[in-house]
Amino acid sequence: MLFKEVGIVGVGLIGGSLGLELKKRKLCSKICGVSFHKKSVLRAKKCGAIDEGSLDYRILENSDLLIFAAPVDTILKLAPKISRIIKRDCIVTDVASTKETITSRLSEIFPNYCGSHPLAGSEKRGVMNAKTGLFKNSVVIITPVKNTRDKAIKIVTRLWQEVGAKVKILTPSEHDKAISFTSHLPHITAFALIDSVPEKFFPYAATGLKDTTRIAASDEELWSSIFLSNRKNLAQSIRLFKASVSILEKAIKSGDKQKLSDCLKKSKNKREKLA
Amino acid sequence: MLFKEVGIVGVGLIGGSLGLELKKRKLCSKICGVSFHKKSVLRAKKCGAIDEGSLDYRILENSDLLIFAAPVDTILKLAPKISRIIKRDCIVTDVASTKETITSRLSEIFPNYCGSHPLAGSEKRGVMNAKTGLFKNSVVIITPVKNTRDKAIKIVTRLWQEVGAKVKILTPSEHDKAISFTSHLPHITAFALIDSVPEKFFPYAATGLKDTTRIAASDEELWSSIFLSNRKNLAQSIRLFKASVSILEKAIKSGDKQKLSDCLKKSKNKREKLA
Repeated sequence: MLFKEVGIVGVGLIGGSLGLELKKRKLCSKICGVSFHKKSVLRAKKCGAIDEGSLDYRILENSDLLIFAAPVDTILKLAPKISRIIKRDCIVTDVASTKETITSRLSEIFPNYCGSHPLAGSEKRGVMNAKTGLFKNSVVIITPVKNTRDKAIKIVTRLWQEVGAKVKILTPSEHDKAISFTSHLPHITAFALIDSVPEKFFPYAATGLKDTTRIAASDEELWSSIFLSNRKNLAQSIRLFKASVSILEKAIKSGDKQKLSDCLKKSKNKREKLA
Repeated sequence: MLFKEVGIVGVGLIGGSLGLELKKRKLCSKICGVSFHKKSVLRAKKCGAIDEGSLDYRILENSDLLIFAAPVDTILKLAPKISRIIKRDCIVTDVASTKETITSRLSEIFPNYCGSHPLAGSEKRGVMNAKTGLFKNSVVIITPVKNTRDKAIKIVTRLWQEVGAKVKILTPSEHDKAISFTSHLPHITAFALIDSVPEKFFPYAATGLKDTTRIAASDEELWSSIFLSNRKNLAQSIRLFKASVSILEKAIKSGDKQKLSDCLKKSKNKREKLA
């Protein structure tokens, strides 16, 4: 068995799915889950994502592995308090979508911390959508820094590999830059696109509009936090995106078929490289 | 049997799928297909989408129903020639993605014309991707005009209903406006989005980027034609989209969490109405 006791702070889609997976694969003997919402605790217990649950974080005191699976703001608020009650040698990770701030703070607070970001999930939230298989073949980026202990890197890597993910390593700053393009920007375009389509035209929508806006059904609290926690990078990626739109716009307005076709061909070729 | 002989000009994804469906449902006794490419003719015959095929449009002379399933430019070029050889009472339709120009031209040329636009297809092209079931539960917009004969409307409606589609009616101008938002704009955002994401970050892409850019793998010739054939409407929808992006951009840059969250919530609610 990889761990004796695992603690999960935030038993939502990611925390809950990780719990289910750890249990299914018998990677630990006990999982304790903490949530702000009694309903989530009850649901998580009922579906077998955790063995014990509480609104009180003191339930985490015997954890060998602690996973923060809550929004960034919540993690930053809770971390100092939780650091006072858990064991010194507890391995700590988180699953937050931006990594610069959180890695810097949690590395100070927990001696055995290594950050992670599983590129898995969906527009759906909550433990009721948790499922095994969520991490299968997904990419998890871990973000060790200079003072991250080898033991933490090793165990956090192992955790994700055991649940089926491919682990890649980036610095927190590389991570936030990459993800501003591959995750945050697509969410911006989806939210903006659905906003700009008049509702009266919805009956004339096909799969194109549906696929390009699926992630616009994502939670507004979660995503406003994510966007703001990656402001500088996101501002830059939005700027580049707007420039790409403007090039197409200009070619369309001026009726420049050759230019337009060249741009689309370039995009098509690039898209085909994204497996 | 609904038709004796059916002619299809352009045996690609749509023309080929329609041929397969008409044969499968025994809606006609013979299908003749025309293409510019010998390979397409051979492939279409081989897969059973047509009974006879040729590079010469004179094969269409006995058609009772004629379907133009080629790019707009090609249709406009061929239509006058084909009108000279087909029967006076032949019902004519097309499947082009924009309708103002083509409906106006083909209505002049063919006495029994009624335009259609099946909102089906994919980023894939060619008869090798043709399949039955493509139109099942899809929406087909037909675009009759003032002088469109009832008989043409009736038979074109029946054609699409028989292959499983739901038929909706719009004027050509309403059609082009609606589709500039529900189809053309999502293609613009997909082409621009993939263009703006640096390729070195592709290993860190999850389903969000993949779904939002799937249609950027669409054919550049087809789509540059479509965009240019709907220039005025598309310029307007791009303008509105850019405004929606700018609102999010501004809220992010200024760190206005409440405003940002309100915008995302509005988009989320709207997206949830798009079944």
